[in-house]
Amino acid sequence: MKKELISEWFRNLQLDICNSLEIIDGEGNFREDEWTRSGGGGGYSRVINNGNLLEKGGVNYSQVHGATPQKILEALQLKKSQFYATGVSIVLHSKNPHVPIMHMNVRYFEMSDGTWWFGGGIDLTPIYASEKQAFFFHNELKKACDKYDTSYYQKFKKWADDYFFIKHRNETRGIGGIFFDRLTEPGEDSKAPIFEFVKEIGNTFIPVYSTIVEENRSIQFDESQKEWQFLRRGRYAEFNLVYDQGTKFGLDTNGRTESILMSLPPQAKWKYDFHPEEGTPEWQTQSLLIKGIDWINR
Amino acid sequence: MKKELISEWFRNLQLDICNSLEIIDGEGNFREDEWTRSGGGGGYSRVINNGNLLEKGGVNYSQVHGATPQKILEALQLKKSQFYATGVSIVLHSKNPHVPIMHMNVRYFEMSDGTWWFGGGIDLTPIYASEKQAFFFHNELKKACDKYDTSYYQKFKKWADDYFFIKHRNETRGIGGIFFDRLTEPGEDSKAPIFEFVKEIGNTFIPVYSTIVEENRSIQFDESQKEWQFLRRGRYAEFNLVYDQGTKFGLDTNGRTESILMSLPPQAKWKYDFHPEEGTPEWQTQSLLIKGIDWINR
Repeated sequence: MKKELISEWFRNLQLDICNSLEIIDGEGNFREDEWTRSGGGGGYSRVINNGNLLEKGGVNYSQVHGATPQKILEALQLKKSQFYATGVSIVLHSKNPHVPIMHMNVRYFEMSDGTWWFGGGIDLTPIYASEKQAFFFHNELKKACDKYDTSYYQKFKKWADDYFFIKHRNETRGIGGIFFDRLTEPGEDSKAPIFEFVKEIGNTFIPVYSTIVEENRSIQFDESQKEWQFLRRGRYAEFNLVYDQGTKFGLDTNGRTESILMSLPPQAKWKYDFHPEEGTPEWQTQSLLIKGIDWINR
Repeated sequence: MKKELISEWFRNLQLDICNSLEIIDGEGNFREDEWTRSGGGGGYSRVINNGNLLEKGGVNYSQVHGATPQKILEALQLKKSQFYATGVSIVLHSKNPHVPIMHMNVRYFEMSDGTWWFGGGIDLTPIYASEKQAFFFHNELKKACDKYDTSYYQKFKKWADDYFFIKHRNETRGIGGIFFDRLTEPGEDSKAPIFEFVKEIGNTFIPVYSTIVEENRSIQFDESQKEWQFLRRGRYAEFNLVYDQGTKFGLDTNGRTESILMSLPPQAKWKYDFHPEEGTPEWQTQSLLIKGIDWINR
């Protein structure tokens, strides 16, 4: 399978997702910026702002190639080589604190020595966590995974718990999801089935997001709930700037900063030593930000 | 000179600065939290919130010791040893966007092999930069430096330009200041004069800050100026989470997260691909966020 076909599929996924999000939003429109990378390739960044639902949303597509940057060679323990990387990355921040932040990334790498792999992940960051919503989210991801390999969900769910973790806070970014990297098998024939799995994940985003949105977008909210949303967004910014591997790679390799940092929240707050009052919905959410919860069989 | 005398002086500096800041603020009071470090030592964190002038301010004092954490040994290229570290660290965010963010850190390290050094820095991050203010700020720092070594200011000013730099934005955090590290001389006798220089820097903070405050605190501001302040604070958060060495060390060595991240702004915003309109005061400020400006002889 030619790498160009994979990036073409990713570009179409970006456009399809943006179309669906405009329909879901009902008001906002995506603005598209094309950019080129001096070392080779480029991408299209699509951003929506101040919509009816979405306060800030970014859907990035990129297809970059060239000499592998030194920092990536070191991080991935690779020999000097040419690389090709393509993918789609999404982060959606909604106005209403009852609608969670949702993130997805799907990506494909190919090196000049012939090695290749897929990676990706979806995770949900509710401002107000609900076990019912977490069950739905994880169950949908499990169904998508199970179509390809019944061992995937459990493995990738644990990976997400470990990856989407704010170590210095000793708390997870949200209620997790799935995360996988370096997904490959020997032989060129094995690429198509893995790509089918990645497509399945990509296609899962909109149905899952729209269901969660429709169930929550009409719930009223007040200033104190916006305040809690701003504090949770502060944690989201901490994760993205301190731990996110995509952000790190992007910044280390002189990527387009505005596209890399599109994932940052429109607004965030930090309050010294803030702890929600016991028994409140905020406290309830905080208590669920731990690794290892089996949301499906709870 | 005993290390305990140095940390005692730092603790008194923290208390003096907090007293002065309460007088300058006129309304807010510092809250003090004592904390202990499991590996040895601890500190006092002092925070002020929602004052008349200060929206959020943190003045940290710490005196920690014990086995040197692995990450610090690697970063400083040291052999396995015991360490002793003490210092004061300040970041002040004011409500009024015409009052700049100001930061200072003074610190002392001593290793069990007898090596010791001082470090420190002061830098100013105006939301609205003014050449007159930048001249005053740098000239005061130069006067403080010149009392001890006329080569210090130029050297430490350049160091600050390089250190307080947001690489991925290709812009400085503010109009700079001074930064120095590993300041030492052979022989125990040389410690006292260097400590005198560090004291001078510590004692420079309040007179300089209060002068800048008094000149700007009465200037009226509107929503659009607060908006610009929130965007600049977004950059401040980026610097602190991505580049700040103190933050990195603190998080890597399992320090007290709330004390380490006290420097984060109370509120920040990120707008995709925002550029101030040419000729505006915001654009003027942006144009001054570059390395190498000689503020004194401009």
